[in-house]
Amino acid sequence: MKTLNVGIVGAGRIGNVHAQSITYHIPQARVVRVTDVNAQAAQALAARYGIPAWGTDYMEIVRDPQVDAVLVCSPTPTHAQIAIEAMRAGKHVFCEKPVDLTLAKIRETARVAQETGMKLQVGFNRRFDHNHGRVQRLAAEGALGAVELVKITSRDPEPPSPEYAASSGGLFLDMMIHDFDMAMFLAGCDVTEVYALGASLVDPRIGQAGDVDTAIVTLTFENGALGVIDNSRRAAYGYDQRVEVFGSLGMAAGENDGDTTVRVFTAQGVASDKPKYFFLERYMDSFVEEMRQFVRAVLEGGEVPVGIHAGLMSVVLAKAAKQSLDERRPVRVSEVLEGEA
Amino acid sequence: MKTLNVGIVGAGRIGNVHAQSITYHIPQARVVRVTDVNAQAAQALAARYGIPAWGTDYMEIVRDPQVDAVLVCSPTPTHAQIAIEAMRAGKHVFCEKPVDLTLAKIRETARVAQETGMKLQVGFNRRFDHNHGRVQRLAAEGALGAVELVKITSRDPEPPSPEYAASSGGLFLDMMIHDFDMAMFLAGCDVTEVYALGASLVDPRIGQAGDVDTAIVTLTFENGALGVIDNSRRAAYGYDQRVEVFGSLGMAAGENDGDTTVRVFTAQGVASDKPKYFFLERYMDSFVEEMRQFVRAVLEGGEVPVGIHAGLMSVVLAKAAKQSLDERRPVRVSEVLEGEA
Amino acid sequence: MKTLNVGIVGAGRIGNVHAQSITYHIPQARVVRVTDVNAQAAQALAARYGIPAWGTDYMEIVRDPQVDAVLVCSPTPTHAQIAIEAMRAGKHVFCEKPVDLTLAKIRETARVAQETGMKLQVGFNRRFDHNHGRVQRLAAEGALGAVELVKITSRDPEPPSPEYAASSGGLFLDMMIHDFDMAMFLAGCDVTEVYALGASLVDPRIGQAGDVDTAIVTLTFENGALGVIDNSRRAAYGYDQRVEVFGSLGMAAGENDGDTTVRVFTAQGVASDKPKYFFLERYMDSFVEEMRQFVRAVLEGGEVPVGIHAGLMSVVLAKAAKQSLDERRPVRVSEVLEGEA
Amino acid sequence: MKTLNVGIVGAGRIGNVHAQSITYHIPQARVVRVTDVNAQAAQALAARYGIPAWGTDYMEIVRDPQVDAVLVCSPTPTHAQIAIEAMRAGKHVFCEKPVDLTLAKIRETARVAQETGMKLQVGFNRRFDHNHGRVQRLAAEGALGAVELVKITSRDPEPPSPEYAASSGGLFLDMMIHDFDMAMFLAGCDVTEVYALGASLVDPRIGQAGDVDTAIVTLTFENGALGVIDNSRRAAYGYDQRVEVFGSLGMAAGENDGDTTVRVFTAQGVASDKPKYFFLERYMDSFVEEMRQFVRAVLEGGEVPVGIHAGLMSVVLAKAAKQSLDERRPVRVSEVLEGEA
Repeated sequence: MKTLNVGIVGAGRIGNVHAQSITYHIPQARVVRVTDVNAQAAQALAARYGIPAWGTDYMEIVRDPQVDAVLVCSPTPTHAQIAIEAMRAGKHVFCEKPVDLTLAKIRETARVAQETGMKLQVGFNRRFDHNHGRVQRLAAEGALGAVELVKITSRDPEPPSPEYAASSGGLFLDMMIHDFDMAMFLAGCDVTEVYALGASLVDPRIGQAGDVDTAIVTLTFENGALGVIDNSRRAAYGYDQRVEVFGSLGMAAGENDGDTTVRVFTAQGVASDKPKYFFLERYMDSFVEEMRQFVRAVLEGGEVPVGIHAGLMSVVLAKAAKQSLDERRPVRVSEVLEGEA
Repeated sequence: MKTLNVGIVGAGRIGNVHAQSITYHIPQARVVRVTDVNAQAAQALAARYGIPAWGTDYMEIVRDPQVDAVLVCSPTPTHAQIAIEAMRAGKHVFCEKPVDLTLAKIRETARVAQETGMKLQVGFNRRFDHNHGRVQRLAAEGALGAVELVKITSRDPEPPSPEYAASSGGLFLDMMIHDFDMAMFLAGCDVTEVYALGASLVDPRIGQAGDVDTAIVTLTFENGALGVIDNSRRAAYGYDQRVEVFGSLGMAAGENDGDTTVRVFTAQGVASDKPKYFFLERYMDSFVEEMRQFVRAVLEGGEVPVGIHAGLMSVVLAKAAKQSLDERRPVRVSEVLEGEA
Repeated sequence: MKTLNVGIVGAGRIGNVHAQSITYHIPQARVVRVTDVNAQAAQALAARYGIPAWGTDYMEIVRDPQVDAVLVCSPTPTHAQIAIEAMRAGKHVFCEKPVDLTLAKIRETARVAQETGMKLQVGFNRRFDHNHGRVQRLAAEGALGAVELVKITSRDPEPPSPEYAASSGGLFLDMMIHDFDMAMFLAGCDVTEVYALGASLVDPRIGQAGDVDTAIVTLTFENGALGVIDNSRRAAYGYDQRVEVFGSLGMAAGENDGDTTVRVFTAQGVASDKPKYFFLERYMDSFVEEMRQFVRAVLEGGEVPVGIHAGLMSVVLAKAAKQSLDERRPVRVSEVLEGEA
Repeated sequence: MKTLNVGIVGAGRIGNVHAQSITYHIPQARVVRVTDVNAQAAQALAARYGIPAWGTDYMEIVRDPQVDAVLVCSPTPTHAQIAIEAMRAGKHVFCEKPVDLTLAKIRETARVAQETGMKLQVGFNRRFDHNHGRVQRLAAEGALGAVELVKITSRDPEPPSPEYAASSGGLFLDMMIHDFDMAMFLAGCDVTEVYALGASLVDPRIGQAGDVDTAIVTLTFENGALGVIDNSRRAAYGYDQRVEVFGSLGMAAGENDGDTTVRVFTAQGVASDKPKYFFLERYMDSFVEEMRQFVRAVLEGGEVPVGIHAGLMSVVLAKAAKQSLDERRPVRVSEVLEGEA
């Protein structure tokens, strides 16, 4: 079978994750070129995974005739442009989320994908998590009956620096965007209305920078189900990642993963493992699996598992949540979809 | 030590529960008289627990000089009137919730309690549940740090008849009222704002009767914490009762109770017990404990554990939630408090 | 329906337990007389549960024509004699375990039961535990296939005084006797061979008194299944009571009971409840249930749930285990059965 | 840092496991040559992991001057000979277990290791399991106090063919050998006496071939602690691997690993994941970790984590168990150690 030749734009943390997945876990693909505006980062990644070519200009990848697919792992503001140029050059694209912070750019990217016929997958890796994926399959197969409630808890172990929090687009676009996508994935349909409650309880400097660090957002789904997401930027006990779907026939709920199943019984009580602390530890398998499915979709044909619609709607919900928080009222998704050109 | 002589008004299900608690578990008290407009019910309860006197008019209890305390277990519309007459006659009162569906009556009841100096406890039994109580104590003791998020899941095993649902005051006053009280109990303070999302997903006749059977309500607490409650009138797997408090130092969360701890491992999977199905099975111990603490407060002096403020605020939140659902906007608690005379 | 009139011989801890069960939980029975060689104890028990008559001579119960059934809760050496006299006087008997420390006395008790036709139940309350009972039913119903392995863990929270340990007959007769009965209950048949490993690891004075405080005993069952019991006189974390049955189709295993289902997540780890510490706390429901079934068997006819065969075989296994430990070899149950007259 | 050049003798399942560990997870080592008497197997393994040289004669590895260390993954009867020749040729050795079925050969292997000063590690991978390793560390650090009881449950998902069972040396040498090593690892010392109970309950043909498929073995440790292992060749629910250490200060116990943490609540009950079914799935991480530590011990110096003493004692216990079963009596380890030259 043909091997897929992949180029990686961006040699930061997520670029390294994908390089590792392909090198060690996906024999059907290989990384042939990596670029980063930081030459040292590109060179280091190339050395680490035995990648034959590296550079500082992503156009080296776009123009490389042996490259079949491009992984866009650069900073968010460059995603759409690189994805568009790659598709126009006949490359399939795997694009990290968010695709862009403006709906216009995301829509343009979608248009180019349609015009060129190139595959375009968005990097919502959590859909490929063993726990969340199991819950979704149970819901999709009807084992839970008609879906009525979707609940997601997502809490980071430590808050980002106030500077990062300010520049990242805020909690809804930077952190809860994963949960918006997960909510629609679990419910099996889009969201029609959003109401957001938020506060700065973790670090006052986050509040001073105009953002929140704690939030509860309720959702109304197209199919009539209701949903709720809670986020905190800091959970003292680690990375808290749980989902629950409740339907007419029952409920599926996932607990966190720990390092071991060991319980220690002493006079002081019974102690067990905290949730895995770091997102790479918790979600590494899901990063491998999303890449495996991207490679398969390109090599064997068929739909990518996470298309540009998910890329668009997750940003729309984040914007609706921000507007709801600002205006202290529920916001219809259509307001955002129609409000931005 | 003196024994407390108790009279019970109302020989329905909850009257029987309290008679059983006192007879079998609280040696410091005894039931000396029971009344019910249904003579047969009063007589049956008296026979079941060896109570010496029964009748059909609650004034027999109010006027009985040997009665020290009255348990008001009659239908909701009669609660306030009976409580007031009992207190004016010098009896301490344990009153089932809701105290009344109007704020005016609840306030009047509070006034009479203050004027007469009688004890007045409201029957929010879930505060005395082993699981919820443990979570609350951990929060109150500071083991979780500053409280930031409160989450409550409360789902009934089976929906009521549409007739009952219509006449009961609706989901917020009939069912979620427990969770409103629990939320304030767990957070350690009152709520300032409510937003309600609701739908009729379980039984369309409930929707036709103008009520919802599925709801998510978000809460803003006085101390800045955020909260969320989800309710469903029907959980296929039983009575789902869970609370979670998340704070700056950690989280406490309770699971449901099952009948056994047994797990069965077969080729088909691993099976364990469903949550206890019936509220009396799940909460019987809490009914005993609330009564034990009422008896102790009367005999030994000291505050009752659940006062009239809780009785008022739970009804206020239910009304705020209903208004929020009707007007599709967050409602401030002060609107309700100031809106009703 | 007729009410069963019960007399209790022995007003110690277990006599109080049964008096409480009957008074508060079994309306079909009432305690009409209690005796204890310690007059104060008898009087106190009578006062506590409103029992009309008390005394110091058990013959007052045996001769009381209104007594239908006698609960033998006196010290072990008196069990058989009292049971025999009661049955000869036409009373049904519930006898605490062990029935006697000699096989001869147990056999005589069995003979009298057969001759007189009186009901005779032995007090192996753990068979009525919610967890253990569930496991047994699964095994008996065939849900686990053919039973192949039976495992029992039974550890006390604190060791007895060395004096008690010495006088009680030793760990096998005093403590593991419950587990021997449980093993046969779970396997659904008798044991044919026993091998015992023991040590004094908890308290050297127990070893000096000739007993062990830690033991592992293996069992061969009549149906070919294998079993193992482990005992310790001291578990730092509380009263550890677990059973497991493994068969050709699967396994059923029970965990300990805790006070709550709450887990506390902090930077230090995840903490949950220890097993219930005290045997009355852990097994109170089973004491009620064994008495309820005894009362039912007497009033309605039918077999008692735990007959004298269980009383005999549990003592036989304890003796076989002691002999195995002393002689450092597996001991066949038939050696004990045939060895003692 | 220097890279360790490794040769692999034996291209079967376990040879592939180690090749995969080194290729994908241990950058400090690389496989430079593989041999197998089956040329096709050697070639396939070489191709799969990009190994430059392959052949059918293990002496090609022994004589290869660039090879630093040899992994002995061939059939058991050849282990000792290959290990000895490799060490004599100046290679460090990682040897799969059992090292040999005779004590003489194991002792000779140990002698050669001592004479040549080469590292010699034995492949007891389960010591590196996350759950078992955690329990062992807690015991070794004293968190459980003095160790008093060690319990191991180890059950395979499916029985081997009767032919394999007969030729493999039997359950004690083929299967329980892992548990014997684990028991000494957890207790922190050797075993002095063994008693074995066994039966053929799973497949009568295993019994006809002179072996057992179900066994319980008790152990006495040098430090006075007691232990018990139970094995079955077939657990309907998957691969059951649990250990428990009980000490004067408490207990540590590991549960099985499942694929997810998801629970499904329906009217039928609560369902969760079965234990992982296949040993590679369950223990893959431990295979990587044992190899990582072997590579580190060779490159950086220091003791290998599992030395030849473990290789010897595990076989001794297996032989003692077999003898105990045959002679129906406890067998002292010294009998075996002194009995075989």
